[in-house]
Amino acid sequence: MPGIDINCDMGESTGLWQYSLEKDISLLQYINSMNLACGFHAGDPHTMHELVDLALHAGIAVGAHPGFDDKENFGRTDIQLSPEKIYEIVLYQVGALEAFLRVMGASLHHVKPHGALYNMAAKDAVMAAAICKAVFDFDDTLILYGLSGSKLISEAERISLPSRSEVFADRTYQDDGSLTPRSMPNALIQSADQSVAQLMQMVTQGVITSISGKTIPIKAETVCIHGDGKHALEFARAVHDALAK
Amino acid sequence: MPGIDINCDMGESTGLWQYSLEKDISLLQYINSMNLACGFHAGDPHTMHELVDLALHAGIAVGAHPGFDDKENFGRTDIQLSPEKIYEIVLYQVGALEAFLRVMGASLHHVKPHGALYNMAAKDAVMAAAICKAVFDFDDTLILYGLSGSKLISEAERISLPSRSEVFADRTYQDDGSLTPRSMPNALIQSADQSVAQLMQMVTQGVITSISGKTIPIKAETVCIHGDGKHALEFARAVHDALAK
Amino acid sequence: MPGIDINCDMGESTGLWQYSLEKDISLLQYINSMNLACGFHAGDPHTMHELVDLALHAGIAVGAHPGFDDKENFGRTDIQLSPEKIYEIVLYQVGALEAFLRVMGASLHHVKPHGALYNMAAKDAVMAAAICKAVFDFDDTLILYGLSGSKLISEAERISLPSRSEVFADRTYQDDGSLTPRSMPNALIQSADQSVAQLMQMVTQGVITSISGKTIPIKAETVCIHGDGKHALEFARAVHDALAK
Amino acid sequence: MPGIDINCDMGESTGLWQYSLEKDISLLQYINSMNLACGFHAGDPHTMHELVDLALHAGIAVGAHPGFDDKENFGRTDIQLSPEKIYEIVLYQVGALEAFLRVMGASLHHVKPHGALYNMAAKDAVMAAAICKAVFDFDDTLILYGLSGSKLISEAERISLPSRSEVFADRTYQDDGSLTPRSMPNALIQSADQSVAQLMQMVTQGVITSISGKTIPIKAETVCIHGDGKHALEFARAVHDALAK
Repeated sequence: MPGIDINCDMGESTGLWQYSLEKDISLLQYINSMNLACGFHAGDPHTMHELVDLALHAGIAVGAHPGFDDKENFGRTDIQLSPEKIYEIVLYQVGALEAFLRVMGASLHHVKPHGALYNMAAKDAVMAAAICKAVFDFDDTLILYGLSGSKLISEAERISLPSRSEVFADRTYQDDGSLTPRSMPNALIQSADQSVAQLMQMVTQGVITSISGKTIPIKAETVCIHGDGKHALEFARAVHDALAK
Repeated sequence: MPGIDINCDMGESTGLWQYSLEKDISLLQYINSMNLACGFHAGDPHTMHELVDLALHAGIAVGAHPGFDDKENFGRTDIQLSPEKIYEIVLYQVGALEAFLRVMGASLHHVKPHGALYNMAAKDAVMAAAICKAVFDFDDTLILYGLSGSKLISEAERISLPSRSEVFADRTYQDDGSLTPRSMPNALIQSADQSVAQLMQMVTQGVITSISGKTIPIKAETVCIHGDGKHALEFARAVHDALAK
Repeated sequence: MPGIDINCDMGESTGLWQYSLEKDISLLQYINSMNLACGFHAGDPHTMHELVDLALHAGIAVGAHPGFDDKENFGRTDIQLSPEKIYEIVLYQVGALEAFLRVMGASLHHVKPHGALYNMAAKDAVMAAAICKAVFDFDDTLILYGLSGSKLISEAERISLPSRSEVFADRTYQDDGSLTPRSMPNALIQSADQSVAQLMQMVTQGVITSISGKTIPIKAETVCIHGDGKHALEFARAVHDALAK
Repeated sequence: MPGIDINCDMGESTGLWQYSLEKDISLLQYINSMNLACGFHAGDPHTMHELVDLALHAGIAVGAHPGFDDKENFGRTDIQLSPEKIYEIVLYQVGALEAFLRVMGASLHHVKPHGALYNMAAKDAVMAAAICKAVFDFDDTLILYGLSGSKLISEAERISLPSRSEVFADRTYQDDGSLTPRSMPNALIQSADQSVAQLMQMVTQGVITSISGKTIPIKAETVCIHGDGKHALEFARAVHDALAK
């Protein structure tokens, strides 16, 4: 699988009732990297512990997936915090997760911000810088996963923090290289075939066709597949198999 | 100050309204060790960050003060968790706090469980073992602070985790060496003089006079002073000055 | 469906990711009463609003399903609170839910404690009395749902609060009429047929066969079906159809 | 005290450690209305219960003080929610508090949004409308307290929900009648005398002198005094005595 990594958000549950371990286990065979919720937008110490254990046994790289402290809205709502507080909530979550790796003789591989934290920082250099600094100060060999072409990537590069430009197999793109917002009807790609075709175009040619039909350059170093939704497994397998060729 | 350390619980606030930085700063001159709330029973990333910064500048050793995830009751209510979950909540909190020390080139000094977690584990060897194992697995040079004569100390010793036997200057003791419960009228010592006298008896003679008048042996390696209450500063100064002689 | 009501716990989700509206809707056809989570052990204002709306349109009675403030453990962990605090957390949750009914010109029908609150109060008369008093003080025409033969029922009767004795179609019973704990292998009935047979025995004969084979009397005024688990819909239909005959 | 009401935010604490009952009691003698935190930005069932009890015995009108579900930032951080969710969080909190009044044979008097919810709605008519509708649907005789001249007041008037225009004794005003933001150096009035002078100007002349020296009209129906800060009691007494004349 040269040139591109497959990542998936996991452990996004809390309590007894909602934890779908079986689904997360089914997906493990198709991914290289796991982004693990750290207890703020989702997740809890027990889930973190179990998934770190599973990931290490499956040889999957574990990354932190820090978000806003807002389980109510699953970290998808914009919250205005000072750069200092952004730095602090990222550092707290990264440290908490690292502890579960450390007791197993392993260590953290990457950090990928979640939801509103990811999307706000993609456009806001000050916020992106606060996140990158927290990761860098904690461990400057960690890899920051951020939206391809976003402020997260440029701020990581500015301080020489390793990064991976992330693309999405099941989302469409606009002319400026940004994701079509979920509020628009054509935001999501519905078929696995079309999703794979878009991904292969990004990986092999370094370009993507926007929703208006324009061909635009895009850097693809890691692709995010989603663990929820009815067709998660089908998409995951299709993406994995296409890239494995 | 040979033979005994003075510790104080700090950072037990959340949000904007309740954070009494001034009081915590006033107390710093009288203590050697700070037990810092880690966001479960109290505290938040911002408070942790500020107090770690203050402690390091004042030359005070920083320890984690993990508790049950129950801000509503300030971690003072018994919650029944499996040993595995106890291990996980301690590990999570210790890791989160360590991150704030790590970015400043420092590291954690000790761990002291809070409230109901401390009191339940004092009597319950299985719970005590789970806490000690979390601390040991994270860093086997950390020091566990636990009630003198309790299961926390014996379980730490069993796995060769360093420990310090904790005594209280402002609490009375029962014949079996346990603290008089707060629900009883004579649980608290009201005068600074009496508090200092009891402490000096523990430190210099290794014994304490129980509420029934019995002389019982007690090991005192660290003394806890409280940061809340009207006379906190006065008690802290009295304890500090007595021990400094 | 004379003599017995079918109730189901619903709305036990929070945030975006876990809310299975489809499943809850599928179950509505088989039940008479809904126990709605109130934001403490599970649920949130938005979920409460949606399910109240659905229930009223489907002609289903809405009850409050208050629990401990502990989403982490889904309200299934024992927490020791004073009777006064038990009263207060029940009152708070009942009031919050009633507001969503009130704005639609409806009102609350019953209250059924959740998880550890239900199980602890079943055996603890002081706790049961605190719950019953909160319900009674709020509205003395509300119906308390409690485990058949438990302290919840006897305390409700003592203050003339209406009550319904609850039985479980998919749980086995011990010789003393209590539920076989979930920790035991034979706690759950695995087949829908056996579940229906047990229920019909309770409803038509007023007795149940315990796991040791003993025939014991039991009062069955409402039966709880579970909304989670793989066979939830199948069990629900079987129970509904058997009782409808 | 004709023409103007004195209100104060209270019960903004959670857990054991931060509840300053004494201070809240000291202030009761100077106010007519209490705005009581409902458990989202601050407060909990126990504190609500205690303060409702105190208020009723002191003859003080009790209002709900709903905020964003964000104790971490004390409800002072902007959170973007849909109008539907705004409606739901207000309704939930109002219902929860009303329960504590209802069991004492009393009822709610007013609703005053807190912090970021108050400030965002002051300028955003859609958000203001969602809040007003929640209050109106719950009880159309409740009084909405909102910033004088703001969207909260105009939206309340639009649906004939009773309202009171609120002014602040210890805050300065800008030329357009809005409060000088707290981030600016002259946002707060530091002396009780100056505070009283500004208040008397508003109450007796219906105008205020802005920070630039301009005289602008302002409607003052209720004045907010703050319960925190070093000089809270002194300011409260000064305001109360001035208005009592």
